[in-house]
Amino acid sequence: MKLWAKNTDVQKEVEQFTVGNDRELDMYLAPFDVLGSLAHITMLQSIDLLSKEELELLKKELVKIYGEIERSEFKIEEGVEDVHSQVEYLLTQRIGEAGKKIHSGRSRNDQVLVDIKQFLRYELKQIVGSTKQLFDTLQSLSEEHKDKLLPGYTHLQIAMPSSFGLWFGAYAESLMDDMEFLLAAYKVANKNPLGSAAGYGSSFPLNRTMTTELLGFGALNHNVVYAQMTRGKTEKLVAMALASVAATLSKFAYDVCLYINQNFGFISFPDHLTTGSSIMPHKKNPDVFELIRAKCNKLQALPNDLTLLTNNLPSGYFRDMQVTKAVIVPAFQELEDCLQICNYMLQHITCKDGILKDEKYKYLFSVEVVNNQVLEGVPFREAYKNVGLAIEAENFKIPESIHHTHEGSIGNLCTAQIKAEMEKVIKEFDFEKVEKAIENLLK
Amino acid sequence: MKLWAKNTDVQKEVEQFTVGNDRELDMYLAPFDVLGSLAHITMLQSIDLLSKEELELLKKELVKIYGEIERSEFKIEEGVEDVHSQVEYLLTQRIGEAGKKIHSGRSRNDQVLVDIKQFLRYELKQIVGSTKQLFDTLQSLSEEHKDKLLPGYTHLQIAMPSSFGLWFGAYAESLMDDMEFLLAAYKVANKNPLGSAAGYGSSFPLNRTMTTELLGFGALNHNVVYAQMTRGKTEKLVAMALASVAATLSKFAYDVCLYINQNFGFISFPDHLTTGSSIMPHKKNPDVFELIRAKCNKLQALPNDLTLLTNNLPSGYFRDMQVTKAVIVPAFQELEDCLQICNYMLQHITCKDGILKDEKYKYLFSVEVVNNQVLEGVPFREAYKNVGLAIEAENFKIPESIHHTHEGSIGNLCTAQIKAEMEKVIKEFDFEKVEKAIENLLK
Amino acid sequence: MKLWAKNTDVQKEVEQFTVGNDRELDMYLAPFDVLGSLAHITMLQSIDLLSKEELELLKKELVKIYGEIERSEFKIEEGVEDVHSQVEYLLTQRIGEAGKKIHSGRSRNDQVLVDIKQFLRYELKQIVGSTKQLFDTLQSLSEEHKDKLLPGYTHLQIAMPSSFGLWFGAYAESLMDDMEFLLAAYKVANKNPLGSAAGYGSSFPLNRTMTTELLGFGALNHNVVYAQMTRGKTEKLVAMALASVAATLSKFAYDVCLYINQNFGFISFPDHLTTGSSIMPHKKNPDVFELIRAKCNKLQALPNDLTLLTNNLPSGYFRDMQVTKAVIVPAFQELEDCLQICNYMLQHITCKDGILKDEKYKYLFSVEVVNNQVLEGVPFREAYKNVGLAIEAENFKIPESIHHTHEGSIGNLCTAQIKAEMEKVIKEFDFEKVEKAIENLLK
Amino acid sequence: MKLWAKNTDVQKEVEQFTVGNDRELDMYLAPFDVLGSLAHITMLQSIDLLSKEELELLKKELVKIYGEIERSEFKIEEGVEDVHSQVEYLLTQRIGEAGKKIHSGRSRNDQVLVDIKQFLRYELKQIVGSTKQLFDTLQSLSEEHKDKLLPGYTHLQIAMPSSFGLWFGAYAESLMDDMEFLLAAYKVANKNPLGSAAGYGSSFPLNRTMTTELLGFGALNHNVVYAQMTRGKTEKLVAMALASVAATLSKFAYDVCLYINQNFGFISFPDHLTTGSSIMPHKKNPDVFELIRAKCNKLQALPNDLTLLTNNLPSGYFRDMQVTKAVIVPAFQELEDCLQICNYMLQHITCKDGILKDEKYKYLFSVEVVNNQVLEGVPFREAYKNVGLAIEAENFKIPESIHHTHEGSIGNLCTAQIKAEMEKVIKEFDFEKVEKAIENLLK
Repeated sequence: MKLWAKNTDVQKEVEQFTVGNDRELDMYLAPFDVLGSLAHITMLQSIDLLSKEELELLKKELVKIYGEIERSEFKIEEGVEDVHSQVEYLLTQRIGEAGKKIHSGRSRNDQVLVDIKQFLRYELKQIVGSTKQLFDTLQSLSEEHKDKLLPGYTHLQIAMPSSFGLWFGAYAESLMDDMEFLLAAYKVANKNPLGSAAGYGSSFPLNRTMTTELLGFGALNHNVVYAQMTRGKTEKLVAMALASVAATLSKFAYDVCLYINQNFGFISFPDHLTTGSSIMPHKKNPDVFELIRAKCNKLQALPNDLTLLTNNLPSGYFRDMQVTKAVIVPAFQELEDCLQICNYMLQHITCKDGILKDEKYKYLFSVEVVNNQVLEGVPFREAYKNVGLAIEAENFKIPESIHHTHEGSIGNLCTAQIKAEMEKVIKEFDFEKVEKAIENLLK
Repeated sequence: MKLWAKNTDVQKEVEQFTVGNDRELDMYLAPFDVLGSLAHITMLQSIDLLSKEELELLKKELVKIYGEIERSEFKIEEGVEDVHSQVEYLLTQRIGEAGKKIHSGRSRNDQVLVDIKQFLRYELKQIVGSTKQLFDTLQSLSEEHKDKLLPGYTHLQIAMPSSFGLWFGAYAESLMDDMEFLLAAYKVANKNPLGSAAGYGSSFPLNRTMTTELLGFGALNHNVVYAQMTRGKTEKLVAMALASVAATLSKFAYDVCLYINQNFGFISFPDHLTTGSSIMPHKKNPDVFELIRAKCNKLQALPNDLTLLTNNLPSGYFRDMQVTKAVIVPAFQELEDCLQICNYMLQHITCKDGILKDEKYKYLFSVEVVNNQVLEGVPFREAYKNVGLAIEAENFKIPESIHHTHEGSIGNLCTAQIKAEMEKVIKEFDFEKVEKAIENLLK
Repeated sequence: MKLWAKNTDVQKEVEQFTVGNDRELDMYLAPFDVLGSLAHITMLQSIDLLSKEELELLKKELVKIYGEIERSEFKIEEGVEDVHSQVEYLLTQRIGEAGKKIHSGRSRNDQVLVDIKQFLRYELKQIVGSTKQLFDTLQSLSEEHKDKLLPGYTHLQIAMPSSFGLWFGAYAESLMDDMEFLLAAYKVANKNPLGSAAGYGSSFPLNRTMTTELLGFGALNHNVVYAQMTRGKTEKLVAMALASVAATLSKFAYDVCLYINQNFGFISFPDHLTTGSSIMPHKKNPDVFELIRAKCNKLQALPNDLTLLTNNLPSGYFRDMQVTKAVIVPAFQELEDCLQICNYMLQHITCKDGILKDEKYKYLFSVEVVNNQVLEGVPFREAYKNVGLAIEAENFKIPESIHHTHEGSIGNLCTAQIKAEMEKVIKEFDFEKVEKAIENLLK
Repeated sequence: MKLWAKNTDVQKEVEQFTVGNDRELDMYLAPFDVLGSLAHITMLQSIDLLSKEELELLKKELVKIYGEIERSEFKIEEGVEDVHSQVEYLLTQRIGEAGKKIHSGRSRNDQVLVDIKQFLRYELKQIVGSTKQLFDTLQSLSEEHKDKLLPGYTHLQIAMPSSFGLWFGAYAESLMDDMEFLLAAYKVANKNPLGSAAGYGSSFPLNRTMTTELLGFGALNHNVVYAQMTRGKTEKLVAMALASVAATLSKFAYDVCLYINQNFGFISFPDHLTTGSSIMPHKKNPDVFELIRAKCNKLQALPNDLTLLTNNLPSGYFRDMQVTKAVIVPAFQELEDCLQICNYMLQHITCKDGILKDEKYKYLFSVEVVNNQVLEGVPFREAYKNVGLAIEAENFKIPESIHHTHEGSIGNLCTAQIKAEMEKVIKEFDFEKVEKAIENLLK
């Protein structure tokens, strides 16, 4: 069953190649396809392209299908081309000719667009949630371990005192900046393309503002040619935002793999969370973090993958767009998995105490000592010379304590401010608006 | 003259390799280096690390150097390693020992960071301006040519009526979505890293909130380890935003190159803006748009270039970061050039009238005719069949006029709404705050 | 069952995250894992680490498992970690303790390496075959349609006469250059890493030259640290070669999509191989070629995906490498599918005749006419002026025939030479050596 | 002066944008442009399109210009568009009208192609030379330090004994595999496109086989449409080969930066080759290797940059191709610099002795001890249990010596075999053929 069927059947080889695993990917769009149809028919009735009775009939049945999808009772049958056809097929089977009317005034082009936009904003919401959770964990660990010092490296050379408080807190703050990109991606995704039809609009007097409100979108993709152009572009921009979160995670995982190495030995995890060997008792392979790193590095390739797919095509729809689904759809779960397992692992991290007592870290206090003398009134040049001479004479003494007070330093982590800023960004997503709209549609 | 000099001189080969063309790139940072120093010393005085007299002396000289930079009288001398050293060198030469004091409580790491952040926000502002200008031009052309129809393609097959109004307008709206990413990038860039020193903060009681205000930053990079981590990350996020604009431009240029092709023949440019040959009189090579496309495609590679440069490095500064400058610095001018020449070319575009009168575009009105019958009360199936039969009987007639009314369609371009939304996004940048801060610093 | 098991069980969450879909991907390695083991045990016996009886017993059982794999009767059972464990598990179940001895003197690191190398060379062989087939088809079409002229474009502007002979032939020759990269990739992949153990070799007196011969490898990865380093690197180099073929296919598909467009209208395909609509009878959507293009563009992203996965890791094995399988394994089938469907479609292509008779292509003969006059003795400048004036006076006449004779031109396609060169490259792969070795191992 | 000039002048803005820094890049092509012209005119005379006298006159002058280029006396003058125009301009100025005849039977399209092909093969030759030099250095160091043991890591966890011999030798062997890709790239680049004119051949009876021999090319790009298609494609394939070398260098640099870190402390460099600080005496910042890593990571982005530039363009020349020069031309010098400074630094490396005596590396001998017992006849399970118990009882003893004998192991580095294989690959380039051809042309 193909909506566009000419009289000629399409060759089996061609069908196999063109459909591929697309049906599987379409399953992710199913709930959103039903929601899109619900909004569309409500609008169609408002412009007299459906009767009230037809609307009620269709609505009831669509809400039922939505339930079936939620309960995993929905599937795209063999021989049915895509999710849109399956929904239409079910409707027609169950309520007859009226089922076909949901297609008036739209095309599969804007139908898949409105599905994808809803899918993207839904998945972004999940990512925002898991990112926030990891952020909270990192902030807790930062506060919990704030008094444990770490060597700070520049050029991977021992340089200055740092701390676990700074280390965990840095990655929390990194997630806050990533959140700005998630927000930008969300804003771009959360716009209504429905009514753009095949990318050139319709001669029907559609009310696109109405469907925008019904679906809880933040705005319209006004221009219908642009609405079509957002296919692929939106996915790419969303991928950029995912890549930003993934980069933070990958970098953190890199640190973890380095710090658990025995030459560093700053952190550890319990045996049941690492792999190893009974004849190499000190081996704690951080497989989880290696895979977080690898998966997040793969995720960082997504924007480029999508650029290659969508670039140098003129305006207007191309079947090429189908392949973007295979790229973007699995990415969300992959990032989710990484965020969650990272969060899980961090519940069990052990942070070593007293690391800086090791002789090899002695000289990372040298700038410290120079500054202390300066604060006591010694001119910088002289203080610097004093310390240099002390070091040369092997006379250098590690200061008893570290006293950093400025914003964002070892002694003043600004945890609360960073949290407040994070929450401010999250609030801008306005997820509630979408939730309410969906609730209304399904009433 | 190197600030970090050990007693040993660095080998010439090493110096050549490590410095490379870095001095040239540093010239772009010069004005921001001076502004950063002005803020830093004002703060140093407030915590008594400088006397009021020293502050006045230093301030006066720095403002003078700023003027020299503006008048292109400043250069990084042979043998001086970077812009920071050059400024310090000039100060010391002119006002003696006090010149060296600007370096207290900071490191070259946060100094270059604060320079780059200012540079990025400055350049983003320019891009925002040129993008807005092109947006305005596209909107004007969209309104000017809104009644000229174009064939709309799907799969590059003739499909539905479109218009120059839709075509130009689509790219304007595309720039509006790109603006969301420019804004996200700006927000991330517009944060103050000063005071993070070598990435682990300082034992001096610095007032980082004060320098944030003095430099007009939107916020602090609180955590000092994170502040250091923004090196490379910020450039990458900015590159993503530039890539988004570049993608819109590249796609538009692709359309132009297609539409000026003689098989399409929808648009034209005057001879003096194209290249050709006197014995091939109909040849109008759209070199400018081919190069816009190519340059914008190269720009779209930037995020990946920067990912490769910065990925899989643990936290802490690495010299690798120097190479990010060579990637991001020239990108702004390249995108600027593309935006401006595109804008320039569009002042001279000719859009053909009456395109759809050609027989080959006849059938793109078929959906149109079906819909018209439906609106007159004919059931869809019947209308569809009528049109199908008319086409088969070679009896199909092109409708006299096109009447699309819904939001974003041929007859309702929503130009004003899109403009209003664009202006709302631009307002969020709050460029004025930065301007005022700089003005105050230079007083 | 995990070979490295410590006494502690690994947490379920960790196992789920780390194993992922790896078992599925390992199924592709199964036959090669058995072959690797066959070679390994033959060698172990030669250095007295197995008795002759044990060898016979193991060999018999491994050959049996190989048959099960070929007949799709083999699967990796729930709770078994990977293909290596599954094979060892089957052996131990069936023949007892001796089964465990296949693991002596090797590690899972070199075991997976030797599996992947065999897998890569096997898959490359398939790609070489399908590429050659498409090459042959393109050459046939080139000869078949060599007298049909096409407009040749530069800057997508009508420029010079071309022909279907040139067009098809160009892509055939392109595949020949791609074959050089397939060969380079094959040479790098076709080297034996077995015996490198965990990447640092073994204290057993292994005979790696013997396993190299037994497995039919072209050479050894000598240095054991390098052998480990080839993990990821080989996949990336193979991906570069695949990307090269994919680029040729993508470009060809682009041409097809352009040439089937109604404004060009140079080629066509039967209805059952395209999609369309009964009310838009002239619409022939080239979905197959759009998807070839898209899939091949995705394939072109592979080298970068693998670079991001493997870059900036120090030497030695990391679990990150597991993720490379998910990237490279599906790529072969994807490229295969594209090569085969392209070949299939080309059996049905229609090439229009008489294209250049259209007035709009008139001036592409102008250089032709100038040259003809020059060949008749008219000085170039004069000939050029003559033609220019004729064009200006609308007096220009299209020459009756085209007479291009030099190598590679319309009249002299060099089909046979290109074929001969292609066959010379293919011969260098020496697939027979591998086939014979495998036959011997399975005896 | 523009060869294609219509009567209309091109607008200054357009010229500025389209020419950009192209003149600078063209300077790299100058010697090859002259060589291409020398071959072309020799051929033209052979088919009577030039008289013998004209040939002599032109040849003499071109050889003179070649000398001027070699002595850096050649420049592209203000207002002259490119290197081809400049050479033609000089000729015409010096010997009158005959100068213009070098352009018969070719177009700037095949002219720039033949220049680039020669440039690429020339630059590849330099890279091959420097790569071989670094290979030799690595092999020497491998032999020199073969008895110094290193810890071998898996998952960055201490795992097995390794050695400096293995470490240096691994990277040498890696360069050998990279050489296969350099060879494939060279073969693709070393083909003659001259005679393809604007990409559709010529009606002149050109002898392309003759110019192929005169320029010492390995083969013809036969099909003229394909010859044009190699623009961009060749650059991309060459970039893949450069990326392969760059990946090896980047990885080596990563190891160096890790091993010089004080927690590892395996290697060192003299003070004058690192940077540091007099108050942090143990700081040896490996700036050179950080920059090698960064620059080589940037180089690894090249294939993708070029893919983005050239992808999704139909066949035929586009001005987009100009931008490929800006990407590929500087890459060679960058890689050269990295290869040479790496080679230079390695002359001064210090490798620590006795590293494995540190207690923390004790257990990396455990597999060793198990194997030793097995070789003495103890069944594996028992040997494994013995070692496990000894470790538990803190009774584990490090073996006195390491005895690895198999191919590629600590005790058997296979240096000579690897060298022989490297030399075999290099011989296939057949650089002499090119040298002789050029010598003949310049006679």
